[in-house]
Amino acid sequence: MGNASLKKIAVLTSGGDAPGMNAAIRAVVRTANYHKIDCIGVRGGYTGLIEGNFTKMGPRSVSNIINLGGTILRSARSKEFRTEEGRQKAFEQCQKNGIDALVCIGGDGTFTGAKIFAEEFGVKVIGVPGTIDNDIFGTDFTIGYDTALNTAMEAIDKIRDTATSHNRVFFIEVMGRDAGFIALNSGIASGALDILIPEKKDSLEDLFETFEKAQKRGKTSSIVIVAEGERLASTYELAEQTKQRFPDYDIRVSILGHIQRGGAPSCADRVLASRMGYGAVVGLMKGLTNVMAGIRSNDLVFTPIEDAIKKHNEINQDLLQIAEILAM
Amino acid sequence: MGNASLKKIAVLTSGGDAPGMNAAIRAVVRTANYHKIDCIGVRGGYTGLIEGNFTKMGPRSVSNIINLGGTILRSARSKEFRTEEGRQKAFEQCQKNGIDALVCIGGDGTFTGAKIFAEEFGVKVIGVPGTIDNDIFGTDFTIGYDTALNTAMEAIDKIRDTATSHNRVFFIEVMGRDAGFIALNSGIASGALDILIPEKKDSLEDLFETFEKAQKRGKTSSIVIVAEGERLASTYELAEQTKQRFPDYDIRVSILGHIQRGGAPSCADRVLASRMGYGAVVGLMKGLTNVMAGIRSNDLVFTPIEDAIKKHNEINQDLLQIAEILAM
Amino acid sequence: MGNASLKKIAVLTSGGDAPGMNAAIRAVVRTANYHKIDCIGVRGGYTGLIEGNFTKMGPRSVSNIINLGGTILRSARSKEFRTEEGRQKAFEQCQKNGIDALVCIGGDGTFTGAKIFAEEFGVKVIGVPGTIDNDIFGTDFTIGYDTALNTAMEAIDKIRDTATSHNRVFFIEVMGRDAGFIALNSGIASGALDILIPEKKDSLEDLFETFEKAQKRGKTSSIVIVAEGERLASTYELAEQTKQRFPDYDIRVSILGHIQRGGAPSCADRVLASRMGYGAVVGLMKGLTNVMAGIRSNDLVFTPIEDAIKKHNEINQDLLQIAEILAM
Amino acid sequence: MGNASLKKIAVLTSGGDAPGMNAAIRAVVRTANYHKIDCIGVRGGYTGLIEGNFTKMGPRSVSNIINLGGTILRSARSKEFRTEEGRQKAFEQCQKNGIDALVCIGGDGTFTGAKIFAEEFGVKVIGVPGTIDNDIFGTDFTIGYDTALNTAMEAIDKIRDTATSHNRVFFIEVMGRDAGFIALNSGIASGALDILIPEKKDSLEDLFETFEKAQKRGKTSSIVIVAEGERLASTYELAEQTKQRFPDYDIRVSILGHIQRGGAPSCADRVLASRMGYGAVVGLMKGLTNVMAGIRSNDLVFTPIEDAIKKHNEINQDLLQIAEILAM
Repeated sequence: MGNASLKKIAVLTSGGDAPGMNAAIRAVVRTANYHKIDCIGVRGGYTGLIEGNFTKMGPRSVSNIINLGGTILRSARSKEFRTEEGRQKAFEQCQKNGIDALVCIGGDGTFTGAKIFAEEFGVKVIGVPGTIDNDIFGTDFTIGYDTALNTAMEAIDKIRDTATSHNRVFFIEVMGRDAGFIALNSGIASGALDILIPEKKDSLEDLFETFEKAQKRGKTSSIVIVAEGERLASTYELAEQTKQRFPDYDIRVSILGHIQRGGAPSCADRVLASRMGYGAVVGLMKGLTNVMAGIRSNDLVFTPIEDAIKKHNEINQDLLQIAEILAM
Repeated sequence: MGNASLKKIAVLTSGGDAPGMNAAIRAVVRTANYHKIDCIGVRGGYTGLIEGNFTKMGPRSVSNIINLGGTILRSARSKEFRTEEGRQKAFEQCQKNGIDALVCIGGDGTFTGAKIFAEEFGVKVIGVPGTIDNDIFGTDFTIGYDTALNTAMEAIDKIRDTATSHNRVFFIEVMGRDAGFIALNSGIASGALDILIPEKKDSLEDLFETFEKAQKRGKTSSIVIVAEGERLASTYELAEQTKQRFPDYDIRVSILGHIQRGGAPSCADRVLASRMGYGAVVGLMKGLTNVMAGIRSNDLVFTPIEDAIKKHNEINQDLLQIAEILAM
Repeated sequence: MGNASLKKIAVLTSGGDAPGMNAAIRAVVRTANYHKIDCIGVRGGYTGLIEGNFTKMGPRSVSNIINLGGTILRSARSKEFRTEEGRQKAFEQCQKNGIDALVCIGGDGTFTGAKIFAEEFGVKVIGVPGTIDNDIFGTDFTIGYDTALNTAMEAIDKIRDTATSHNRVFFIEVMGRDAGFIALNSGIASGALDILIPEKKDSLEDLFETFEKAQKRGKTSSIVIVAEGERLASTYELAEQTKQRFPDYDIRVSILGHIQRGGAPSCADRVLASRMGYGAVVGLMKGLTNVMAGIRSNDLVFTPIEDAIKKHNEINQDLLQIAEILAM
Repeated sequence: MGNASLKKIAVLTSGGDAPGMNAAIRAVVRTANYHKIDCIGVRGGYTGLIEGNFTKMGPRSVSNIINLGGTILRSARSKEFRTEEGRQKAFEQCQKNGIDALVCIGGDGTFTGAKIFAEEFGVKVIGVPGTIDNDIFGTDFTIGYDTALNTAMEAIDKIRDTATSHNRVFFIEVMGRDAGFIALNSGIASGALDILIPEKKDSLEDLFETFEKAQKRGKTSSIVIVAEGERLASTYELAEQTKQRFPDYDIRVSILGHIQRGGAPSCADRVLASRMGYGAVVGLMKGLTNVMAGIRSNDLVFTPIEDAIKKHNEINQDLLQIAEILAM
């Protein structure tokens, strides 16, 4: 593979952090090194790019990080990068430092910034999908999603112990502002009675019917999983209204929160992130730009970054039905 | 050991469940069986005692439960048992079923009920301290405490990943309505910047000073652990007021909640619960009643149940100082 | 969906157990129940089928098992079922109990038995791939594989702590008699220096070269992952010969062994098993027989059981290269 | 507290590593810093002391290590330090670098070295007990022991899943060359049928009797825990001889090995290590030398290092009986 035109790349993480980002950084750095491409780490996402918060990275700078949650390059949401002035400064930093291309690890927002930057200044960019929400088109899974699923599920398993011991109903909120992937899959995996996600039109009457059915079948405790972005009502309101309808129920709410963003990445996430980080460098070496590296059906694929932003992974309708059938 | 007068005992779990209760139940049942004492399991705490919700238990009924969180006997808080009528019914159930003695696994409330019951009706009772809060006098540790510590700490570790990646301040609330044991120990174990507990007079100014000191030393992210029962202010209010004082801070709140009550018990909890369950039966065989079985300095000891209720384990003052010194 | 001809099915687990088998059993039982099909659980695999070791299963018989490792139906390798007499007895048990179809959860051996049985006696069979080895054609992943990967990786992570502290070289053997999936993926995920698998022609000289390269680059500790079925030499021999070549190395061997078969299934495995268990019943209802239910590219697919046995999932060649590039 | 005579201390880890050593290092460094005492980290144990492999440590050098297994200072077993010449060189390094006192984190061997060194050259030394084996006198628990217990128990739990599914007998070897603490406690916690430890006189006939009893009671799978240092026979031999006696048993052996040395430390270990590391500096400030810091009955105590080496923690006899009673 020729990489005549690719001498120095930079890698950054931006937006919400996700377990496995470090594995992706490591893969970018080591693949670049293998192909004799210099690699710069940008600290603090686009803010760091604007400020020139750079660090030279070699194979040893990424030793013993594959197993760490978070991102050693830190992340941030940069308001300044949304302005032309900000991006101009970032471009100057790239020029000054001889950076030919950027590997941007993050989600929707990260990719939108990368796309505009690439179009304005001609800097090559390639995206790597890192977000626990799994809502990026162009890859079967995003980095961090599998780990977040396991974290959520393990937390729900623990809550189920106490729910069962006390014959309680728990409304448990999991992350996912726009997407119900975490809710649906962790809900199926923990045998939730019902799962409320933004992609599905839910109603209180359906929920109450499900409770009634469960009661008839002798279920004495129940767990309802609610995605953060559920549109019917907030998790607290859902609990409240259920209490009004079933005054005898002993109902509790648990918001799992930020534990879902951290933790040592799962094996699947580490391998996925390694493949994508490797793929990003390979893509740049092939001359690709304004694309995202993803894995679909176990193959490395590149998707126009525009599609990655605009299109969305759909919830598998079969899973919704399976969730319902297996709940009782 | 003679057990002429002890032919049949019953075991129940009451109050908030705690990981390791099943290991205690198993130990009670198998120790009784070993000494040819019949053993009855009472389902649903004192409510089950009143209603005669009994099940005969043998060594095989407790197979493969030592590793399970929650309690296979279920638990409940019984209002009826707080009335004389309720306890009268419970006594009749004991008589009808030939129950000589009760092993009551739980916390303060459980022991208070047991004590009154024993005094009113002469049924022998022995307490086993099962609560994650560790606030029972007469034992170094209560069943479930060590597991809850690990659960809280692991959750905080995960949050720290994301706190560090984003240079954020997290206020994390852990369980402990009256006691700061979980907060103090999980806080030390996770390198928390500050730890707020009900046993210590906290002030906003102290907290803010700590933040300032941390800032000066270059700490870019911080975790503050707040016990549920902290008296200064609620966790949300603390976060709010810190934000007003330090508007630049990116502050988040996380309430760990009920995950702390569940999960597979730790090794220490399983061994502790096994020793106490065993000790409870041994205590009853020795003719003891109205006492609690505990482990102090690695020895089985029996404490008058009255003391177990009234007195309290004190927070180790050294630990408070260590927490402060090691935070920076 | 019509299921006129499907009144009663039986489900069994056979061969080596795998985490998630219980989730598959639960899905079979509850899907059957939903469609008003009776469901029988067979205890102890084909041996249980021969002996009529049956238990009627309803939705409540599979409560709270989705999170358990192992299989509540037990498993076994049956010599008798390999004989015509054995299978004849099994058929008689099916007839006597009105069993129309069998769901067989297991691997190669299980499917071979099912296929012969179906061909001899016309009993409908459908396979569900449950094995940690991931070596079954017709599905992207087998039940238990993802959990085993995480278990192996977490164990390797622990060993790496001590390897790093002592500047040691560890040869770690993971499961996989015929397939290197676990070795390759857990090796990549744990940053192994080298990975030896049966699908790849390994040589001692390559291995030694890798060690030399690592030494030059300043690596002070290393982990080499060896699949159980590696053909070059046994793990102990590999360690031995490495010691002869590099007498200064402090070399240790660790055989991870049976921990890889157990444990609570991961979220991915529970969802996968739920989908396949559901799919097996759906397949039978559609009149399919002698097929295996699998998930490929996120879709439920049915593969002739003959293909599932004869063909094999191939190791992704890219992954081999990625493993090598990222190791240093 | 005056520390006029204590200007600079050094800290090292030596012998087998144990989870929590990093927490102890952190506590030493930060406590020293708090008291304005300089702190030097010695890399690679006594070898590093001899070679002057030193690094200046401040509060930030130990950020984010409290949760890491292993030891950031590395460890080693030094042959040279066992010679007078070696210790002479080490003393010269201490003099050259102005080191007044040494904090030595490790076990028996580490303490023996420290004691001789202190006696020969008058350098102040204080020991901190870090070993998973828990066999050090002068402290209720050693650093790493609690984590190792949980690691062993979780591994056994996983093996039990597969043992139960296949009606198998597993002989599982856990660490402990001279002490049975890990075996006894992890065995009780995992409901082992029998536990073989060096402190107890075991016989094959007792073991076989136990198997027979278990068989009579309907146990279909069993786990026997064997301490590494068991004197009756090796774990493989025990399995072999059991197979000869009970040819029908399906027997497997699992050697848990080095996973027991690694992993993120448990909460109890992190707190213990923090207290001891703090205590070591406090002890030195009080003018103590040739002692070990330990925690007994929740209090910081100092034990002559000679006693720590020569005396031994005894296995609790009650626990042996409890193990036996609860096994069936």
